[in-house]
Amino acid sequence: MTTVREPKQDRSRVTRQRLLEATIDCLAELGWAATTVAVVAERAGVSRGATQHHFPTREDLITAALDYMFDNRMAQARVEATALPAGEGRTEAVIVRLVEYFTGTMFKAALQVWTAAAADPALKERIVPLENKFGRVAHRTAVHLLQVDDKDPASHQLVQATMDLARGLGLADVLTDDSARRNIIIRQWATTLDSRVKRLPTTDS
Amino acid sequence: MTTVREPKQDRSRVTRQRLLEATIDCLAELGWAATTVAVVAERAGVSRGATQHHFPTREDLITAALDYMFDNRMAQARVEATALPAGEGRTEAVIVRLVEYFTGTMFKAALQVWTAAAADPALKERIVPLENKFGRVAHRTAVHLLQVDDKDPASHQLVQATMDLARGLGLADVLTDDSARRNIIIRQWATTLDSRVKRLPTTDS
Repeated sequence: MTTVREPKQDRSRVTRQRLLEATIDCLAELGWAATTVAVVAERAGVSRGATQHHFPTREDLITAALDYMFDNRMAQARVEATALPAGEGRTEAVIVRLVEYFTGTMFKAALQVWTAAAADPALKERIVPLENKFGRVAHRTAVHLLQVDDKDPASHQLVQATMDLARGLGLADVLTDDSARRNIIIRQWATTLDSRVKRLPTTDS
Repeated sequence: MTTVREPKQDRSRVTRQRLLEATIDCLAELGWAATTVAVVAERAGVSRGATQHHFPTREDLITAALDYMFDNRMAQARVEATALPAGEGRTEAVIVRLVEYFTGTMFKAALQVWTAAAADPALKERIVPLENKFGRVAHRTAVHLLQVDDKDPASHQLVQATMDLARGLGLADVLTDDSARRNIIIRQWATTLDSRVKRLPTTDS
């Protein structure tokens, strides 16, 4: 076996990634107050010095972690989209997938940050642009997956309502496992959505 | 003018109420970490001793505050219900009202507690029964206001979805004023709901 020396640049990228993933895990599991740079660095197995080299402040670390995880999730969504059924059942499959994002670790971590930012103007100023970006990209992804005509006002609004519903279902899942109730709501909403939105003609996009 | 001496019992009730209201304000404004018993007592203008007499622990104070404010809001909803229009426009008026609860101080305070409880098992144990009660009572109130046949499964599920939507809209309003977008979503949702739910014959309840 040959030992392959990672180039320095790659090692730096891996270190950064480990820190960002550890940040999300800490936020979701331990909450806002307990997610300090020291705790994250220890969980990631990265020295304090290296951590501060990558992320000078706690706010830098946390906003970078949310941004990284969101981009990751959206890239994953685009890959998974190829496995979604066409025609009947597609709407429900898409909503199930969307709601999964709002009940996962990423949402639980984001909730900790959003809630802290509500009472912290400096943090809020950093989070609002992220929130805008997340909302815009998530909407665009949902429109694409649902194959809906976003230029039709009612359809545009119903996709937005679907994201709001998903966010509400995410919040209902924070303290207890709400999955049984949630699955019934998702099925009902898929039927409702199918009856109200204007579809785009199917293409091979 | 005659000075009316409040009976001791009434004074105690007023003190208690002042503490509960100050707790909600502190949570919504300062966040979870900053809402200590000392801060609440000072804001309410109540001595530490009297505060601890009413609420031995911080958790006692916070759970009592949420419970009190929720009961208050529901009582208010029942009074306000008499002013809701009958027939056309009623659904939208009801949803506007429901969403107001999820964008107000009470929701912002509750969000701080829910989020803290996500990472604090002892607090979570106290909050989950409250969450169950709030969900049950809010659903019953929504069914009553919307005059929907809750025994019809699709109607029952769509009322639940309406509460989930309202929760999601509440969360979207935490960092920025989302009211312009929200009002369009509410109107769309009202039309959708009207086209899908089974109504009860109108009575004078």
